[in-house]
Amino acid sequence: MGAAANRAVTLRDVARLAGVSVATASKALNGQPQVRAETRARVVKAAEQLSFSPNTLAQGLITQRSGTVGLLTSDLEGRFSIPILMGAEDAFGSDQTSVFLCDARGDAIREKHHLRALLSRRVDGLIVVGARPDTRPSLGRDLPVPVIYAYAPSDDPADLSLVTDNIGGGRLAVDHLLRCGRRRIAHITGDPGYGAAQDRARGALDRLAEEGLSLAGGEVWFGMWSEAWGRGATRMLLDRCPDVDAIFAGSDEIARGVLDVLHEERIDVPSQVAVIGFDNWQVLAANARPPLTTVDLNLEQLGRTAAQRLSAAMDGALSSGVETLPVRLLTRESTAPLR
Amino acid sequence: MGAAANRAVTLRDVARLAGVSVATASKALNGQPQVRAETRARVVKAAEQLSFSPNTLAQGLITQRSGTVGLLTSDLEGRFSIPILMGAEDAFGSDQTSVFLCDARGDAIREKHHLRALLSRRVDGLIVVGARPDTRPSLGRDLPVPVIYAYAPSDDPADLSLVTDNIGGGRLAVDHLLRCGRRRIAHITGDPGYGAAQDRARGALDRLAEEGLSLAGGEVWFGMWSEAWGRGATRMLLDRCPDVDAIFAGSDEIARGVLDVLHEERIDVPSQVAVIGFDNWQVLAANARPPLTTVDLNLEQLGRTAAQRLSAAMDGALSSGVETLPVRLLTRESTAPLR
Repeated sequence: MGAAANRAVTLRDVARLAGVSVATASKALNGQPQVRAETRARVVKAAEQLSFSPNTLAQGLITQRSGTVGLLTSDLEGRFSIPILMGAEDAFGSDQTSVFLCDARGDAIREKHHLRALLSRRVDGLIVVGARPDTRPSLGRDLPVPVIYAYAPSDDPADLSLVTDNIGGGRLAVDHLLRCGRRRIAHITGDPGYGAAQDRARGALDRLAEEGLSLAGGEVWFGMWSEAWGRGATRMLLDRCPDVDAIFAGSDEIARGVLDVLHEERIDVPSQVAVIGFDNWQVLAANARPPLTTVDLNLEQLGRTAAQRLSAAMDGALSSGVETLPVRLLTRESTAPLR
Repeated sequence: MGAAANRAVTLRDVARLAGVSVATASKALNGQPQVRAETRARVVKAAEQLSFSPNTLAQGLITQRSGTVGLLTSDLEGRFSIPILMGAEDAFGSDQTSVFLCDARGDAIREKHHLRALLSRRVDGLIVVGARPDTRPSLGRDLPVPVIYAYAPSDDPADLSLVTDNIGGGRLAVDHLLRCGRRRIAHITGDPGYGAAQDRARGALDRLAEEGLSLAGGEVWFGMWSEAWGRGATRMLLDRCPDVDAIFAGSDEIARGVLDVLHEERIDVPSQVAVIGFDNWQVLAANARPPLTTVDLNLEQLGRTAAQRLSAAMDGALSSGVETLPVRLLTRESTAPLR
């Protein structure tokens, strides 16, 4: 009893005390008919003795389940999938479910192999995390466990996909710059072939249009997801539009390049030009000079929601379609009101 | 046959053609006695017909195994564990073994939980990747499968640990700077509580001593693993030792801070001061201005070696102790010979 008080009491403890299997203890507490009355009474007494909380059982996804979930990713750096994994584990209850991550590296054959391995290990469900926030092929409808697509949506509308709100993120960034009194706002972003680049730009343009404004420099500067492009585009922008007072970068990498050239040109951030990034990639954003205001993708929340939807699906409450989750603004020192 | 030519022929193909189970095909080709002569002949003929390479079998770890390996990590960013995972999968044969990654986040209870989950899923072996290259507690000697510790060594000398050669890395960095004709070399590095920081510094000092040199600035600048420390230390260093001609940074993050201040001071890299980092953290090193020469930890090779040692251990060839794997220099543009 003393030892048990130091940790959560599990169904296993109850079963051990009652002298029955975990499966029998579960059936007894769930009121299933296959259990003899005498056995049920013994289990209930053991549960009471140990102060076994029915909540543990209600929340727990364990009963009749393996307590493992597969996370199939193609995210070579683990940048997106690790926070999603953490969020999912937190939501499942870290002492109840293990998430197994397999990296398919964007290779369909490897993905199939990992999928088979995970299914043969009898995972209770799957979370599929794409390498980029664009539509990806569905794993199909004939899998024995529920699947949630996170970050990259499935191309099958019958699947449930959770994506981050890139349009909303673009709006959020520009809205913050407007609140800082900026009016000549430029947007430098990545590869136009990415839906995320298009969506962030669209959100930015929409919000500007509401104020009767257009982009400083006259266009969205599409290019690459790199610091080098951030530097190159900023030089072109300063040539064309030397009085720009804010730059919204489509990623933190790009924002780092932007900051670099502004420093080089002895343009003060944020007093002369405010800079905002996107992603909240900690190592780049928090260590920038000045630390970078950015749009956080809320990936841990995405992971938590994926776990919740997966739990519901395991209980038979399968939903479908694309669910868009909000992102949030994280202000640091690279943005400030005009004085 | 046409289809088979497009991919590696597997034991499964041979078994199918011979009309026997994979297990029987394996026994037949391994010369085990339980197989009838007629069956063995059929399997050997099928193997010849398909040009099945005995190497595939020798390398393949599949027979009588589950084809899954667990990777237990506490590396929150996936920076170290993802390349190790990739290297391990490549060595196992990506179509033969899946590596399941579980993130314990440095929490011993969570680690135990994941360990139980992986063992209950009957993984064939475990690779344990530490969050930092310092000694970590052993998982113990009574596990049912072999365990290899990678990056962070186990505290039990009976375990097999694979670590990166940080002393050698420090030597390598300084040696390269010396070859570039630099003589006034400073070393700015991270938290002195990390064995890696001490080892890299020791390698650097040893190599300098061989040339009768000491460190520019008179000391190792220990501090933090951050860009901010790289900036702060560089400012102090330039004050104390304005004629420094090379800076060896203990990490790429620190090197980025070093570069930042050198740019600010209009000191050219590499013509006036050469800069070298450590880690080859792609996003920081390759995108630096100029791109950063750095010491690559060879983590994929570490993963491959871990897979090989694990395979050997599964075959009963268990070794123990600490095996140190070489790192390598990756030159980019931040270092160059003095003109």
